Amino acid sequence: MATLQLASWATNLTYADLTPGVLSAANKSLYNWAGCAIGGFAFQPAPQIALNTTLSTFSGPPTSSILGANGSISQGFADAQIAAFINGIASHVDDYDDTHLETIIHPAGPVASALLAIAEAYGPVTGPQFITAFVAGIEAECKLGLSVWPEHYDVGWHITSTTGSIGAAVAVSKLLGLDTLHMQHAIGVAATQVVGMQEFFGSDTKSFHIGRAAQGGMMAALLARNGYTSSLQGLEAKFGWLHVVSTHENATAYFGQLGTVWEIEKNTFKPFPCGIVMHPTIDGAIQLSNETHEKELSVDDIKSVELRVNPEVMVLTGKTDPQTGLEAKFSIFHAAAVGVLYGEATPSQFTNEVVKNQTVINMRKKVSVIEDESVPTDAAYVTLEFNDGTKLEKHIEHAKGSIENPLTEAELKKKFMEQTSLAIGEKRAEKAYLAFTDIGNMDDIARIRGMY
Amino acid sequence: MATLQLASWATNLTYADLTPGVLSAANKSLYNWAGCAIGGFAFQPAPQIALNTTLSTFSGPPTSSILGANGSISQGFADAQIAAFINGIASHVDDYDDTHLETIIHPAGPVASALLAIAEAYGPVTGPQFITAFVAGIEAECKLGLSVWPEHYDVGWHITSTTGSIGAAVAVSKLLGLDTLHMQHAIGVAATQVVGMQEFFGSDTKSFHIGRAAQGGMMAALLARNGYTSSLQGLEAKFGWLHVVSTHENATAYFGQLGTVWEIEKNTFKPFPCGIVMHPTIDGAIQLSNETHEKELSVDDIKSVELRVNPEVMVLTGKTDPQTGLEAKFSIFHAAAVGVLYGEATPSQFTNEVVKNQTVINMRKKVSVIEDESVPTDAAYVTLEFNDGTKLEKHIEHAKGSIENPLTEAELKKKFMEQTSLAIGEKRAEKAYLAFTDIGNMDDIARIRGMY
Repeated sequence: MATLQLASWATNLTYADLTPGVLSAANKSLYNWAGCAIGGFAFQPAPQIALNTTLSTFSGPPTSSILGANGSISQGFADAQIAAFINGIASHVDDYDDTHLETIIHPAGPVASALLAIAEAYGPVTGPQFITAFVAGIEAECKLGLSVWPEHYDVGWHITSTTGSIGAAVAVSKLLGLDTLHMQHAIGVAATQVVGMQEFFGSDTKSFHIGRAAQGGMMAALLARNGYTSSLQGLEAKFGWLHVVSTHENATAYFGQLGTVWEIEKNTFKPFPCGIVMHPTIDGAIQLSNETHEKELSVDDIKSVELRVNPEVMVLTGKTDPQTGLEAKFSIFHAAAVGVLYGEATPSQFTNEVVKNQTVINMRKKVSVIEDESVPTDAAYVTLEFNDGTKLEKHIEHAKGSIENPLTEAELKKKFMEQTSLAIGEKRAEKAYLAFTDIGNMDDIARIRGMY
Repeated sequence: MATLQLASWATNLTYADLTPGVLSAANKSLYNWAGCAIGGFAFQPAPQIALNTTLSTFSGPPTSSILGANGSISQGFADAQIAAFINGIASHVDDYDDTHLETIIHPAGPVASALLAIAEAYGPVTGPQFITAFVAGIEAECKLGLSVWPEHYDVGWHITSTTGSIGAAVAVSKLLGLDTLHMQHAIGVAATQVVGMQEFFGSDTKSFHIGRAAQGGMMAALLARNGYTSSLQGLEAKFGWLHVVSTHENATAYFGQLGTVWEIEKNTFKPFPCGIVMHPTIDGAIQLSNETHEKELSVDDIKSVELRVNPEVMVLTGKTDPQTGLEAKFSIFHAAAVGVLYGEATPSQFTNEVVKNQTVINMRKKVSVIEDESVPTDAAYVTLEFNDGTKLEKHIEHAKGSIENPLTEAELKKKFMEQTSLAIGEKRAEKAYLAFTDIGNMDDIARIRGMY
């Protein structure tokens, strides 16, 4: 039932069904994804190694853009499988992407990475077609995530990629016009590829998950389109996805809300490039850092930084002594330290250099954590104590970037411009912003490659 | 510990460590794999659809052979990723491959498919190098399978592909000369890609699992070789492979036996192209069919076919009314029916046509199954009752193809010749037999492509 329900809803979805709120959320989700991919490509080893390993040996005719590459044919394009792989990695490598907070899924990465590559290779695809397919994919992965939350995550799966391959399959199937039956088969081929475990957080393999999910979902749709069979009950069967990867599921109920409750409207955007459960702490630390200066106190005189946070924070981001930038993205100690020291937490505060900086190391050692079940995951209490006994405290009720306290359009643009300017220069960044915010109006999505 | 243990053993393994029994088992495993891939490629939709979906759009320079293709450059070669994918699918699609009975892993497919493609692309690779890497991969996947058996399988995972990606990663890493540290990272990237659920048995997706596992393991090794990081505890960590995909594990103990107890020596070869738990029933049905003729009884007069088998037979192969050849490979009813009717069970008895044949359908309806815990999975009781009240009974203690009752070298050659002759003609089949049985003596494995 669940597989048919999902496929049936997705094949019947039309652009006219999308509300203004959904269209606005889709627009933000897409350009935030593109900004992360462009910004993530240039400076991280993961997408660079992945590209070097695949482009010359494993790419077919170069139909699809690698975002953030310089745009020349030799370096800027690959076949749709490789492009989706690299863009997926790059969009997630900074841990700066979007978040569906109820499931901690970062939904755009697997779906958009597969979809853009396919739209370029199999187009022409219009903006409305693209947006409709994108929304179908996002809803699929988030509803699926909700239906197994939190049991699936508690097992140790990286839920963004485990649901992402199915979201990508739905989106690509939708874009290619598969009927319900073929989409069911596509969902099955995607479901049987479960990529992503939490052990690999803090390494290059975390972002690999997103690239691989995009590839797997895309391949599932392309195979099913050509008649490859899987199962019509790939999700709900006893030995199908829902039961193999989770001890509990409620898919039928959640799929019953498809098109009524839109998950994409709940998508949020990270102000800080790191694990989302650290955001309230960073928000508080930055605010206290600013107050320190206002009150003419010196960070050099800080005796201790005390955090009171939800226990999940330590489970996911408990690394006390990170050695690399990627590890620091999962260190609540590093997060608090840079928030206090620098008064900001941008990609520049999560470089290998900053992680090894002695002042930062000293500050990390001053951070202590109290775990408190009564503190929600989007909240935190941060207390600075100075050597002279002065204390500054901050209670963050809803972290910057949460649903209750979202980034404004201007802040989201600023984020896009900051991360992309570093990679491709301010002029191209401005053009890229105009291009990726205009996807919904294009007559052929492939034109986007010439626009920045 | 487990990840280091495995990587350390594999990187230190030398050809001189391989006993005559291991070398003989490796030889059989390899040529049986090649025979299945050559035979499986031509007549099944799965490898054909997979090739059509990928070759022209997603293959880089064609370095590696597609077994069973006709050998011309345009059709017979692809990049190593695509070749491994297609060969993996083809080698498993007939359910005719090898079996490590303690785990029901079909070990050669994921490992050999990845390894041959890489040896051709990154060579020259000598026979001894190839055999050593192959054995490393087989031992890795079987020990890993043993360490989570049966809990991992009981969850619903397809253990051949879930362990196969890791086996392929170990084998390719070994062939490429990775050191222990890099192999640990490769194991991690492979471990985080868990492909294959039992729901997809009986569809094109079952063999997809093997192709995808070969690709995933190969990519893991290539990425790690270029410095891609994962985790040094990808298997044993709390949120690593062993604990995420199984409720129980004993990897350290099993890895402690690496190089002492050789799993490849326990590899067996199927006499019938279908689910292995049906083999004792088929063996019995064929023997009774022959006796029927000897005793001048007519199969038309059969009233019933009664089977007494292990309950696992119904779990895995309980399809009463298969609609396709692939589904029939998981129907104990079909297996018994064709055994009795045809007195043989070759790929010709598992075609879509035979499945829909009215006589076969009628005979399937006469088959009944009694589940009996006391009957081992490699045993069966088969009873024919005729309309005149005559009964013929057969107790199979160890099915043909089991460890206790293995195929002889002559039978294994006959199997190779039968399946490959249909695909590439008898003359080339004979040459292919000579080539694939001589792998261990070659100075460059890539030469094999010119030998048949």
